[in-house]
Amino acid sequence: MAVNLNLPPAVPVVGIEWATLAAGLKKAGATDLVLARLADTSTTAAVFTQSAFAAAPVVLCRQHMLKNAGSVRALLINSGNANAGTGQPGLEMASGHCDAVADALGIPAQSVLPFSTGVIGQLLPDEIMRRGIERAGSALNETSGVTATHWTDAARGIMTTDTQPKLTSQQVVINGRTVTITGMAKGAGMIQPNMATMLSYVFTDAAIPADDLNQVLGEAVAVSFNAITVDSDTSTNDSLVLVASGTGEPVDAAHKDWALFREALTHVCLDLAHAIIRDAEGATKFISVNVTGGHDIAECKNVGYAVANSPLVKTAMFASDANVGRLLMAIGKAEIDSLDAAGVTVSLGDVVAFEKGGIAAGYSEERGAAVMVEEEIVITIDLGRGAAQASIYTSDLSHDYVSINADYRS
Amino acid sequence: MAVNLNLPPAVPVVGIEWATLAAGLKKAGATDLVLARLADTSTTAAVFTQSAFAAAPVVLCRQHMLKNAGSVRALLINSGNANAGTGQPGLEMASGHCDAVADALGIPAQSVLPFSTGVIGQLLPDEIMRRGIERAGSALNETSGVTATHWTDAARGIMTTDTQPKLTSQQVVINGRTVTITGMAKGAGMIQPNMATMLSYVFTDAAIPADDLNQVLGEAVAVSFNAITVDSDTSTNDSLVLVASGTGEPVDAAHKDWALFREALTHVCLDLAHAIIRDAEGATKFISVNVTGGHDIAECKNVGYAVANSPLVKTAMFASDANVGRLLMAIGKAEIDSLDAAGVTVSLGDVVAFEKGGIAAGYSEERGAAVMVEEEIVITIDLGRGAAQASIYTSDLSHDYVSINADYRS
Repeated sequence: MAVNLNLPPAVPVVGIEWATLAAGLKKAGATDLVLARLADTSTTAAVFTQSAFAAAPVVLCRQHMLKNAGSVRALLINSGNANAGTGQPGLEMASGHCDAVADALGIPAQSVLPFSTGVIGQLLPDEIMRRGIERAGSALNETSGVTATHWTDAARGIMTTDTQPKLTSQQVVINGRTVTITGMAKGAGMIQPNMATMLSYVFTDAAIPADDLNQVLGEAVAVSFNAITVDSDTSTNDSLVLVASGTGEPVDAAHKDWALFREALTHVCLDLAHAIIRDAEGATKFISVNVTGGHDIAECKNVGYAVANSPLVKTAMFASDANVGRLLMAIGKAEIDSLDAAGVTVSLGDVVAFEKGGIAAGYSEERGAAVMVEEEIVITIDLGRGAAQASIYTSDLSHDYVSINADYRS
Repeated sequence: MAVNLNLPPAVPVVGIEWATLAAGLKKAGATDLVLARLADTSTTAAVFTQSAFAAAPVVLCRQHMLKNAGSVRALLINSGNANAGTGQPGLEMASGHCDAVADALGIPAQSVLPFSTGVIGQLLPDEIMRRGIERAGSALNETSGVTATHWTDAARGIMTTDTQPKLTSQQVVINGRTVTITGMAKGAGMIQPNMATMLSYVFTDAAIPADDLNQVLGEAVAVSFNAITVDSDTSTNDSLVLVASGTGEPVDAAHKDWALFREALTHVCLDLAHAIIRDAEGATKFISVNVTGGHDIAECKNVGYAVANSPLVKTAMFASDANVGRLLMAIGKAEIDSLDAAGVTVSLGDVVAFEKGGIAAGYSEERGAAVMVEEEIVITIDLGRGAAQASIYTSDLSHDYVSINADYRS
């Protein structure tokens, strides 16, 4: 059950068309194949997993982005099978599926980006994929696929252990005209993205030069998808794509309203990243770890991840246990150079629990417990040695996380 | 319930005397205070946690070892309270307890090493500790405390969530005379020691120069206590002490039989480290991750820990699921520079599951499942790019781990 997962309603972005169907990769007729056609005016930026075992579609995406940056025309996404750990046969299959999309839509194969999510280490069922691509291509050629329902269907079609589709929008006014940013994401476990998340697609109707799109994507990712963790496990398939369809207002990094656009984009990315944590496998809590007073952002993130990934912290959160000792343990193991424990302050919500090397004078178990019993928990760690800060977002470690992952074959 | 935890019986080491009692730190009359008196001929080596929040007794131990290396005369150990995160009051209390031991035994306070394990962030109950020390001092002054029962009592007295005492011996013949090495350890969670384990004490009757003792301890720790993980969490109190009582045969690093001694010491350390994993919180499996073919030991250990600490790998192990995909995911996230996935071979037991970038030709789910159903699982990962190797030992992630840590206040 997701923790307070209520996203603002999504607004379709002009220039993007969707086809979503149940190709037969998942059981019980669930939708599992999504095809997006992007307007000819689109520019695209993308970031991918840093895993040494990057999946076949990730390898192909990288090649296509290199050869074809800024003129991506279609996104092919399947759930139910990750096409990872599948070697040369997996690569050839993904390449063949890009060819099939190219044939169906009359575009170059290198303008197609393929994405897969699901079980690792099994070949995709080729025939099922090809039949699905043919049906999806026909659907796009027959109907427009641009309504809010088409967008929700697509967000549902990329899900694996997610309990809800994750889709949201922000709008800003640039040059007196409305610019829309709409994004979707999936992912509930194997989540500590390294440069990107499991699968996320963000769209805007603005017209943006590819270089500026790349830059703003990197900035938004650093504080959103690259600041969440469910279980410290980095997927082989993490991919985040930002498409500017170019059907709307032009804006670039030199524009006076660029900051407005960047903020709205960051808002969408953060909402989606938070949505992944709120719907994390077995989550009963949404936990923000705010680390302040660091020498640099890197050490703040290190401390944040050490706390957010600690099984002992996460089980204490599950138990609503105001266990300050485990927080100290996790901060202590983060290997921060010459950290002075006496300068560190730890607060649960607004309650200062630890300062000057010992339990804070006004702290009591009762005050800590009142914070921990909530579904939304904020832990603030002031390292007391600088001006840098970073926030990491995570879920707790519950029996359901163990059940889901002892049963589900991912 | 521990996994195949059957240690060779322990042989008392001459020159070490024990007093163990229930001081009242733990509930229900469990033993929680242990005092060891070491022969005047003893030399001692020790390693401690690298945590920035090192507990008060660890800070004192470091000071006493610096000022007094090689002439430690007593070990004071309490369980039930870690005296960590307790600031200056915690330090003063631990120092006072060393004074109390010094008074009771007629030795310098700086020759006493204090150790604590249990709840973090609470002050020790001073009166209970002082009464316990007085009683333990009297017991040592009245009786010898050198029988096998005294040793077992001590190993039991340092336990927290351990289900069994962990105590074992090895004997080697040097210069035609038997040298005994006997060690004990505790720890079942918050276990990824960084330079030492939760609490471990190893004794030999050999006479060994302090420098050589330090060196051989470092070598033995690298492949034993510094190669295990239950939950990636590093304790604030990790301490490992090696005492050579000097009552037996002299041996040093230049001796022709030094390698014999080092092997026996490593054997004891490895048995104790394995015992910690076999008795890990909620463990149902004992898992060895052998990483071979690396450029250096460090990258082999990185891959081993990435696999051994992955919640998704550990839940798959709990489910006896031959989930090769999760192993690839974990290897992939280890951030090994320029790792070529096509050169990596992954085996479950003797069954090759992944090679040349894809699932191995002869592999089947049935063959993998036959390995995974066992209590003892060996995963071998050949990185295929060098001659270095390392082994990491871990347990699975079960419902019991969550229950134990959502209930127990550590």
